[in-house]
Amino acid sequence: MIKVTILYPNTPGGRFDFDYYLTRHMPLSIELLGPAMRQVTVERGVSPGAPWPEPAFAAICSFVCDSREAYEAAFLPHMRTLQGDIPNYTDQQAIIQISEIEIDHVARPVGAPIPI
Amino acid sequence: MIKVTILYPNTPGGRFDFDYYLTRHMPLSIELLGPAMRQVTVERGVSPGAPWPEPAFAAICSFVCDSREAYEAAFLPHMRTLQGDIPNYTDQQAIIQISEIEIDHVARPVGAPIPI
Repeated sequence: MIKVTILYPNTPGGRFDFDYYLTRHMPLSIELLGPAMRQVTVERGVSPGAPWPEPAFAAICSFVCDSREAYEAAFLPHMRTLQGDIPNYTDQQAIIQISEIEIDHVARPVGAPIPI
Repeated sequence: MIKVTILYPNTPGGRFDFDYYLTRHMPLSIELLGPAMRQVTVERGVSPGAPWPEPAFAAICSFVCDSREAYEAAFLPHMRTLQGDIPNYTDQQAIIQISEIEIDHVARPVGAPIPI
């Protein structure tokens, strides 16, 4: 299982319209890329104050997919549409990374039986 | 719900012992931080070749937690132990980011009923 992670740097003076991103761009991405995306997450960097550092990224988005090939098969037909929408919410150059998922651990609820 | 993301840069000449990280450090983290971590993920950056860029990060780790306060309550008692273990697997300075989770979308299996 792979994860495609898209990281938008939090640059002073940089523009990132989170409202557009959450209400327009990401719903469009989820619709166009379809169920080959097993899970899609979006996080918004926050500044809780010291000792936490300022967020390095305004937003981090991830797409979990069975394989790189499955991701490309879903993404490439819509690449022009999705990339063409980027200037509507940011002027930042995203970092795009492809990773293998090595650990995906979900906590056992307190009192739940230990899975065998 | 918040996510603490720890990103280890993929620097030429940098050291990252993934075997130690996956078999020693992360199991220790998961044990010490306990069930307040709702989900823990680790990804390993890969180099699939063009047109994909080289991975910016050797590893990306995330901890999902109810709140920043819940994370700190779980982490601070073990901070010295966990941070002291870092030189055993890397000489890289990690980027640590705290984020609010805005979207966590799981694909509906093909043919499954639409949730109401």
